[in-house]
Amino acid sequence: MKFTINKEIFTKALLNTTKIIQPKSINAALVNIKMVLDANGLNLTGSNGGDISISQTIPLYSGDQEIIRDVRPGGVLVNAQILTNIARSIDGAELTFELMDDSLAKIANEKSVFKLNSIRVEEYPEIDFSKSGTRVEIPTKDFIDSVNEVSFAALTKESRPILTAVNFCGSNGCLTMTATDGARLAEKKLSVVLDQVFSINIPSKSLMECVKSITNEQKIVLYISEKKVIFELKDTLISSRLVAGEYPNTKNIIPKQFNYFLEVNANEFLTAMNRTSLLSVERENVVKVTMNSQRVEISSKSQQVGSAVESLNVFKFTGERLEISFNSELVSAAIKALKSEDVLISFIGEMKPFTVTNKNDSNIIQLITPVRTY
Amino acid sequence: MKFTINKEIFTKALLNTTKIIQPKSINAALVNIKMVLDANGLNLTGSNGGDISISQTIPLYSGDQEIIRDVRPGGVLVNAQILTNIARSIDGAELTFELMDDSLAKIANEKSVFKLNSIRVEEYPEIDFSKSGTRVEIPTKDFIDSVNEVSFAALTKESRPILTAVNFCGSNGCLTMTATDGARLAEKKLSVVLDQVFSINIPSKSLMECVKSITNEQKIVLYISEKKVIFELKDTLISSRLVAGEYPNTKNIIPKQFNYFLEVNANEFLTAMNRTSLLSVERENVVKVTMNSQRVEISSKSQQVGSAVESLNVFKFTGERLEISFNSELVSAAIKALKSEDVLISFIGEMKPFTVTNKNDSNIIQLITPVRTY
Repeated sequence: MKFTINKEIFTKALLNTTKIIQPKSINAALVNIKMVLDANGLNLTGSNGGDISISQTIPLYSGDQEIIRDVRPGGVLVNAQILTNIARSIDGAELTFELMDDSLAKIANEKSVFKLNSIRVEEYPEIDFSKSGTRVEIPTKDFIDSVNEVSFAALTKESRPILTAVNFCGSNGCLTMTATDGARLAEKKLSVVLDQVFSINIPSKSLMECVKSITNEQKIVLYISEKKVIFELKDTLISSRLVAGEYPNTKNIIPKQFNYFLEVNANEFLTAMNRTSLLSVERENVVKVTMNSQRVEISSKSQQVGSAVESLNVFKFTGERLEISFNSELVSAAIKALKSEDVLISFIGEMKPFTVTNKNDSNIIQLITPVRTY
Repeated sequence: MKFTINKEIFTKALLNTTKIIQPKSINAALVNIKMVLDANGLNLTGSNGGDISISQTIPLYSGDQEIIRDVRPGGVLVNAQILTNIARSIDGAELTFELMDDSLAKIANEKSVFKLNSIRVEEYPEIDFSKSGTRVEIPTKDFIDSVNEVSFAALTKESRPILTAVNFCGSNGCLTMTATDGARLAEKKLSVVLDQVFSINIPSKSLMECVKSITNEQKIVLYISEKKVIFELKDTLISSRLVAGEYPNTKNIIPKQFNYFLEVNANEFLTAMNRTSLLSVERENVVKVTMNSQRVEISSKSQQVGSAVESLNVFKFTGERLEISFNSELVSAAIKALKSEDVLISFIGEMKPFTVTNKNDSNIIQLITPVRTY
């Protein structure tokens, strides 16, 4: 196995495929990157062992540009992190990779010679990148937006594995993505062409890694089978396990009727809330909003350090006087995910979940559970 | 006590005086900032309890610009971190601070009202900022350069307290600053006006904090007494404890005669060394340099991952063939501290300390102990 490759393209592909690799793995082969060179180009495979694997092929040519030359086919495993660090730091526009024997690979240019211990390609575990099952095509812009709008709301701890996933539910030409950690919920609806009904739970982390792998593709294609989902980009396949089990029924959680409506400028509301939460020490990040049609105040109180009151300049409030307390971090994350200049916050009452939405886009809803006002 | 103050100037002074304050302190009063307002302006004092204390005075006027207005003199202690966070995040160009009673302070502008629990100013420990003892004046540029050139070489662990300090030794119109952690040593000489001989040990961290406090001053004045040193800037006084005990005698450590001389381009040498050390896994960061007049190679070897060899394009070597191994991190830090395009490395032999210097500036010397070549 031997090849001379464009350094920049090689480094980018290495970064993309090695970003998920864990420096320590139960299966020792998985600290390596798998490289297979044939007439299609150089295929790189990296895996974190259980959740996600990425396979990217660097073609020999990109249009007229020769990317890989002096090709002698073959395959090998080498330490992913060290190879990536070498590729990104080596001087010059090209580097040459050459397998010396069954256990030694050489990476070199005019000034540098690295010899890396290597492993036979057969030692790598079989990873299923087969494009089977239900096919769903999503424009990458919609996919990126959706992941950014919902995946942060999933649980980050493993205490309830099902909640670390984002539920993808497809029916009637609509894909509904839902994430919740128990205290908040984000739901996004997307129109897509569907020929089958499905409900799968994709680890939130896998979705974020997918987003990072997108370069300039127009679309991403999902192939959903029983235990895995494949994401297909131009030169990249990402395989993620699905989280088993039934996702909690969230259909009736989002209220339809509200009694109070507060429209605010996102930026003013965020900065006022952040300042107020500086004084929220004992009950971390809990702030209180007191609203009537004349005045909206955000406040917090701490026995230990003191109190803060902020009043808003720009707002529109409809309803009776209302006082409600919540974790400002949750509301802050929800508002930021909307990426909207103005947001609408709709309440039922002081102890009922409330929604944070963008007036001009009803496809995304953020729901937050308040906390008891003291 | 009451005042209305320019927010930006107040925030900068708060950041300068609170940067050393520890969030937890044995003396509970020291998590606070001390503020005293009188006809001279607003004096802020922060302290980390033992090593260093900073006192800065914001004048009422800066030239024609009114900085503080509506002044009602007084003093108070408030939580340093919270006050700083409020000042930096509050909207508008000014804020008003007002002491409500013995235990409550109000910080406000049109939109925000913060009430902070406060403590009587008398609760703050006495800190000695008296300008007594030997006076030494240093241009700030020289002071900053010197601190950057030597202080990194001090010990960071507390295992030998004396080595956490930089030794300032003054005699015959020359100030010699020395720092060593046992494996490397940095020595800088500076011509200054001196009327007394002294040798003091200033904690390396205090010096770095001093450098951060410098704004646009032309000079810094040191007042050296038995147990402390005062650094005087325009509106700021910094008091640092001295480390007791005698500094190791380093006078005869720096060799005068060398047998091998290697001149290199700093940048090429650094990048080649960094790449080589990627493969230095078992003996962390150890690399070997092999030199003769035709060729200079930097190499490393690891049983576990492999080997690396880099050759230099630009160099000048004088002497017989030499092979020497060292910790590349130490040499890297030494080269960076010199801030020179080319550096001269002078060797006696493979197991003797070697120097890294700037050919055009003999006032700064970096000395490094090699390790055994394997």
